[in-house]
Amino acid sequence: MKTKMDDQLSYIGVVRSTLKNLDDCPLQESEQAPGAVIEISDEYLVGIRSLNPGDQIVLLTWLHQADRSVIECYPRNEVSAPTLGVFATRSPNRPNPIGIHNVTITSIKNNVIAVDALEALDGTPVIDIKPVI
Amino acid sequence: MKTKMDDQLSYIGVVRSTLKNLDDCPLQESEQAPGAVIEISDEYLVGIRSLNPGDQIVLLTWLHQADRSVIECYPRNEVSAPTLGVFATRSPNRPNPIGIHNVTITSIKNNVIAVDALEALDGTPVIDIKPVI
Repeated sequence: MKTKMDDQLSYIGVVRSTLKNLDDCPLQESEQAPGAVIEISDEYLVGIRSLNPGDQIVLLTWLHQADRSVIECYPRNEVSAPTLGVFATRSPNRPNPIGIHNVTITSIKNNVIAVDALEALDGTPVIDIKPVI
Repeated sequence: MKTKMDDQLSYIGVVRSTLKNLDDCPLQESEQAPGAVIEISDEYLVGIRSLNPGDQIVLLTWLHQADRSVIECYPRNEVSAPTLGVFATRSPNRPNPIGIHNVTITSIKNNVIAVDALEALDGTPVIDIKPVI
């Protein structure tokens, strides 16, 4: 299948976090991810004006340090287990490394959205925000 | 923020559906979306080998007919209501038109995955499959 120019993601913002490298990352969201902030780029600022503290959102990120060549992998890094097709796993290493994070907004000030717990490295591009419905 | 070549999505497959154009689409997943199939491209076939009928998955699609210039919009097309910033809505028209679909696999045969209910047009590119955890 051909890839066209319209398949290119736009970054709407960036994650700022105390998680500075992959070794800092818990394996799943529930395992003590720290709070973090999202800095929204000026051109997308109008898009967040209807969000409020307390809102539950689905944050989509582009896990830019992932290995996009991975098609099969070990479950949760258990190298003694049989490999799985990557689409049966939540591995960040996959053809399109999109992170899906269910988080709650704790504050919004100008272009900075603070969220309660986020497993994403500092510098991770943000590609979408959707309300939980 | 600059867009680099690594921001380009890979299509892992395509939706085949009876929904042939936007007028056929319900506004939300729960409103009578029909069953559909996903055809996985040969190069990603190994990635689906651990999926099984009955599995609940999160299917990510690239809503290729969306208007990516939309930053604010009317809620559910109610043009009499005040506009909302697009990131407080589930509008398909948004900077990165990624569809998130919670579906159940009903059968898998070779590269064809059938799912129970999917609001996505025939021909919509598939970009990721994740297990529900």
